[in-house]
Amino acid sequence: MESNPSTFQVYDTTLRDGAQQEGLSLSVQDKLAIAGHLDELGVGFIEGGWPGAIPKDTEFFRRATTELDLKNAVLTAFGATRKAGVKVHEDPQVRALLDSLAPAVTLVAKSDIRHVERALRTTGDENLAMVTETVRHLREQGRRVFLDAEHFFDGYAFDQAYALEVVRAAAEAGAEAIVLCDTNGGMLPNQVADVVHDVRSASGADLGIHCHNDTGCAVANSLAAVDAGVIQVQGTLNGYGERTGNADLITVLADLELKLNRLVLPDGRIRDITRIAHAVNEIANVTPYNRQPYVGASAFAHKAGLHASAIKVDPDLYQHIDPEAVGNDMRMLVSDMAGRASIELKGRELGFDLSSDRELLGRVTDRVKHLEARGYTFEAADASFSLLLHEEVHGTRPLFCEVESWRVITESRGPESVCEATVKLTAGGERRVATAEGNGPVSALDHALRQALLPVYPELERMKLTDFKVRILDGESATDAVTRVLVETTGAGAVWQTVGVGTNMVDASWQALLESFVYGLASSGVRSQV
Amino acid sequence: MESNPSTFQVYDTTLRDGAQQEGLSLSVQDKLAIAGHLDELGVGFIEGGWPGAIPKDTEFFRRATTELDLKNAVLTAFGATRKAGVKVHEDPQVRALLDSLAPAVTLVAKSDIRHVERALRTTGDENLAMVTETVRHLREQGRRVFLDAEHFFDGYAFDQAYALEVVRAAAEAGAEAIVLCDTNGGMLPNQVADVVHDVRSASGADLGIHCHNDTGCAVANSLAAVDAGVIQVQGTLNGYGERTGNADLITVLADLELKLNRLVLPDGRIRDITRIAHAVNEIANVTPYNRQPYVGASAFAHKAGLHASAIKVDPDLYQHIDPEAVGNDMRMLVSDMAGRASIELKGRELGFDLSSDRELLGRVTDRVKHLEARGYTFEAADASFSLLLHEEVHGTRPLFCEVESWRVITESRGPESVCEATVKLTAGGERRVATAEGNGPVSALDHALRQALLPVYPELERMKLTDFKVRILDGESATDAVTRVLVETTGAGAVWQTVGVGTNMVDASWQALLESFVYGLASSGVRSQV
Repeated sequence: MESNPSTFQVYDTTLRDGAQQEGLSLSVQDKLAIAGHLDELGVGFIEGGWPGAIPKDTEFFRRATTELDLKNAVLTAFGATRKAGVKVHEDPQVRALLDSLAPAVTLVAKSDIRHVERALRTTGDENLAMVTETVRHLREQGRRVFLDAEHFFDGYAFDQAYALEVVRAAAEAGAEAIVLCDTNGGMLPNQVADVVHDVRSASGADLGIHCHNDTGCAVANSLAAVDAGVIQVQGTLNGYGERTGNADLITVLADLELKLNRLVLPDGRIRDITRIAHAVNEIANVTPYNRQPYVGASAFAHKAGLHASAIKVDPDLYQHIDPEAVGNDMRMLVSDMAGRASIELKGRELGFDLSSDRELLGRVTDRVKHLEARGYTFEAADASFSLLLHEEVHGTRPLFCEVESWRVITESRGPESVCEATVKLTAGGERRVATAEGNGPVSALDHALRQALLPVYPELERMKLTDFKVRILDGESATDAVTRVLVETTGAGAVWQTVGVGTNMVDASWQALLESFVYGLASSGVRSQV
Repeated sequence: MESNPSTFQVYDTTLRDGAQQEGLSLSVQDKLAIAGHLDELGVGFIEGGWPGAIPKDTEFFRRATTELDLKNAVLTAFGATRKAGVKVHEDPQVRALLDSLAPAVTLVAKSDIRHVERALRTTGDENLAMVTETVRHLREQGRRVFLDAEHFFDGYAFDQAYALEVVRAAAEAGAEAIVLCDTNGGMLPNQVADVVHDVRSASGADLGIHCHNDTGCAVANSLAAVDAGVIQVQGTLNGYGERTGNADLITVLADLELKLNRLVLPDGRIRDITRIAHAVNEIANVTPYNRQPYVGASAFAHKAGLHASAIKVDPDLYQHIDPEAVGNDMRMLVSDMAGRASIELKGRELGFDLSSDRELLGRVTDRVKHLEARGYTFEAADASFSLLLHEEVHGTRPLFCEVESWRVITESRGPESVCEATVKLTAGGERRVATAEGNGPVSALDHALRQALLPVYPELERMKLTDFKVRILDGESATDAVTRVLVETTGAGAVWQTVGVGTNMVDASWQALLESFVYGLASSGVRSQV
């Protein structure tokens, strides 16, 4: 049951409804960058925001006309039908939709009579007139028009006849599709399927679906609606959205393409979803959800000892799809629950053959268990694990300097604080003392360590700290708790992660920082000169 | 369509399958504590682990016999059928299941012929004998027995006849229910419903369902199976589990009870799920997922200006259930997208009436927007927002001391580092200088600040830092990025959160720390003595 990408509509509302997520705040620049990724993914419609209501969104549409060059997607403006008692061509918000120059407009309208009366404080008839006149006006101005029927499922359950009147009014006035919105997110798949089926029969209109995840069923509800014949599916990247979020378009698209064989994206684009999902998390500054289907860091990660030994036999038996189909990777996790099989596979991934030495493999496994019990995690710090393997295999770690001492002073005598680090070490046959300032203790240590080592190892110039994470491991004892620091470094085309652990977050940062320097130099083949 | 809690089985596998989650590691003590919460929630079965295979799990069952007093749940041991070619009463792992003294045992068995041949490396007939003999042996020893039919859906698609033979063999040998496992997690709801229906018809056996979330449909798949007639649903708290996780039992139970009116828990227990879900996250040390249905911190949080103004009219129109039904709360979010209506509601929540002063409301709204643009978040820091409101309403903040300067020195001269803070301030009419050590900079500052202020404000003795979070806000510039610190303080029966922001994480921590002291003193009605 393949579909034709040109008729089935994939509609993204990350920039509008997704931006309602708690803690999420997108600048105009962020929105332009995300729109670029969405176009690359191949969605049909990008809802850019609400021009006229949110100043940042007005600005987005203004800049989009010159700065966005969409290859695939149609930029769409979101807004309300005209206000009650106002002439449509005199309504400033309707004017703003036209002024946005977006070729398509999605109008949100009430389809639950209770909302019409209690929230809009108008009559059912006036609401129908608002729908009809606004759709018609925008169509006359040459826009493609969709109608988001807000609170549709609740409204339909309460007053079926009125909800259907709204659908018919919009369709008759020229709306291309009427999108049934489960605004409060309370529906289950069978209910959605039944309503979509009934509304299609009763109205004859082309329908769309817009789900929220309040019952944990947003994806399944969207699929149920597609199965029942909607021609448009709405969602957001990574399921961003208010409360529990919108339907995750990433999962919906992968399910449609890879499970139901409905090809709704341009050919082959589904292979880019992992990269795009992560890139958008970066832009939106949202911590990735590791358990996200298809694209999460854990989505194809195997930890159970039982599985790890069987995966060596036949990976296909233990994965629902080939991770490459979505641009993700299978990973073996190094953890205290992992048996030797996982450690052996992980070692092979990093270039160490541990299969021939059972005693070595046992020693590494024990050491990993011991360190993870103290708060280390090697799942997210391959470079640290690689140094540990190096030490166990070769008896010693790569050594590029002998550290004598380090110190960080943070001081505040008013609104501003200053941070200064001093590092004392021996490298290149000389004792070196370097002091540097920074915006914070890690930055100051990074600068001082670089300053001390650069004369001996100029290769450090090409390596740069690119991410830095701090996690407090024991929520009970607060400031006395163990801190885990993960550092990401980028250099010479590679990216690597190291880990440090300690009750003192500055100390933990120093460990991770120093290991990132050591790994970077060792893996670039730099000769040690202590 | 109510069900009888005594016949429908709610089966939790958090302690066994949930523990496979990346980054999760449960001690025996953790497992005992979680089992207590599960029993309180009212699940029918608690799968404790795999005695004989994982030493920690053997220990768990040993301690459970004396330390767990289950009121509702049946403790269940998990393990494999006998090994191929071994006599069942001579198999040490089967022996370990009996030795665990668990009154119920769940046996995992292969039901996909490919796994039998390639992973177990035995024949289909021997696998059937393994199932029959192990189930019968455990039944003869007085245990209740369930069979987890691993990879059932893939196996059924590949070789329907063999998969059915496994189900029949287990049922005939006395297994109480045969649990169909979507081990690789690739199924969709309609597929699950069809298979459950067909297997029930073909085998006549009582069935259970065990889903993983690889298609984002674990909850919907579980509900589809219940609808198709399974008598047992398996899942994990908060959806913990390998890869994308197991079906979230929290969501499944809330959907069953509140959406489908199937009362599967003891009366009224569903009202405790928010508290229990959060308590288990604490024990497991898993960062709560704010967008989790029903129980997430964002599940009933409203941010959109459009919604906020309407919620003042009628909250029921904007929520799919009353949050109190699951022990959660509606929250209004303070954010740069929020209009004045949200700020006004939030103020009311905190005891400030902003409705009568439009100019004040506008000023607070502008200030929040400005501060959030710089990295602050008041969504998670009510105490800081309350101090901000106090300042705008009364023209000044509560002031308990005048800080002159502070300094933190972190120094390392070997494997250990030391941290020392000095605080200089005026309080109680005197200049005070205090120096204290700590495990890290925040701990040292906390100790020094307490030392300086305790003589004047002995009430501080009752307040304690209980959580501490650090977030790097801009992943691009790493150590030069802005750091946001959230501090949670507990004292005198209350818990409050404050926020600090800055490029220097020590400075940001100081701000949050100082505000937590100020808020704690002010809200306890302590008189200021600068």
